[in-house]
Amino acid sequence: MGRTSDAREKILGAARALIELRGYSALGVAEICKAAGVPKGSFYYFFESKEALALAVIDEQWAVQERSWKEVLAGDAEPLLRLRRLFEVTQAAQHAGQRDCGTISGCMFGNLTLEMSNHTEAVRVRLQEIFDAQVGMIDAVVAEALLCGDVTVTDTREAARAVVAQLEGQVLLAKLYNDTQGLGVLWANCLALLGARAPGEVATGL
Amino acid sequence: MGRTSDAREKILGAARALIELRGYSALGVAEICKAAGVPKGSFYYFFESKEALALAVIDEQWAVQERSWKEVLAGDAEPLLRLRRLFEVTQAAQHAGQRDCGTISGCMFGNLTLEMSNHTEAVRVRLQEIFDAQVGMIDAVVAEALLCGDVTVTDTREAARAVVAQLEGQVLLAKLYNDTQGLGVLWANCLALLGARAPGEVATGL
Repeated sequence: MGRTSDAREKILGAARALIELRGYSALGVAEICKAAGVPKGSFYYFFESKEALALAVIDEQWAVQERSWKEVLAGDAEPLLRLRRLFEVTQAAQHAGQRDCGTISGCMFGNLTLEMSNHTEAVRVRLQEIFDAQVGMIDAVVAEALLCGDVTVTDTREAARAVVAQLEGQVLLAKLYNDTQGLGVLWANCLALLGARAPGEVATGL
Repeated sequence: MGRTSDAREKILGAARALIELRGYSALGVAEICKAAGVPKGSFYYFFESKEALALAVIDEQWAVQERSWKEVLAGDAEPLLRLRRLFEVTQAAQHAGQRDCGTISGCMFGNLTLEMSNHTEAVRVRLQEIFDAQVGMIDAVVAEALLCGDVTVTDTREAARAVVAQLEGQVLLAKLYNDTQGLGVLWANCLALLGARAPGEVATGL
């Protein structure tokens, strides 16, 4: 089984890299197998279809990102400082990707939402679950900040949704201009969206 | 020439509809010609390549949208009320699209940014010009609002960029959940991002 499991990992790794570079529709199973260095027969042993592979890639990517978000958002620091750290981690990840391959891949979930959600129902549902989870994690931190009197929003879930939308929108612009500098404004924009009582004090309190 | 021009329009119309539904990579020239009801030879008479067609579709779409934005943003109403109208028009357009085809296509420029900008330089440059123009148009209105004392931002261009990012992010979520209701928050989020002095008063002043 060692060798077989290895083939699955190779296919997943190649697919993830190719999807980040070129999206889903532009790829063929043959190309993915070639990049993974495995025979096409192996592909269909592990994955029923290209769509099943896309779902596996999405799951794997979210497992990694969810772990990172949980670590960042569950620390002992003040709620808003943890949220700030989330943006720093996002900017650093996009910057590292740009350094490695010359371009900014953006958010895989955002990319696949715009490319696939309208014609692949299983992918739409999975991506909805992921964005629901992201909004839920930020919502919990915003609710903590509200208890501390650091923010003034009334609907913490709607505010969390606005923060996620801002994140996706700014990452879209970062990808378009191949420039991560613009992501530096995420913190200030987040404070504005949350109606932070004293943005200056929170921002300089680090 | 009447008949020939007609073929060009048919190709453009079919390509726009197909790109909105399924993106760029998933399409082939043969499929576009079939949907347009024109022979493949006509395609290459008008367009050098599929990429050239994509650029023409983008230009045509922006010509329509730019006209609409200019109309909305150049009226006599107070600056922030014109901006509010822009969000209403956006929500109405997405809602109309959903009514016509069952799903929300989202923003063609956002869709193609995430799908194509990293591997088609000509498309990246064209989309950058369009987003520059969008930010510029909103920047001008925010600057007016600043003169009136309606907003408190210091960098009007950065604020306009945040508004465009919020718009793209919320349209992404609307597409994912196939629900335009979420776009209703754009106005409140815009006011927060602009540091509007009295959001309640502006919001209810309509």
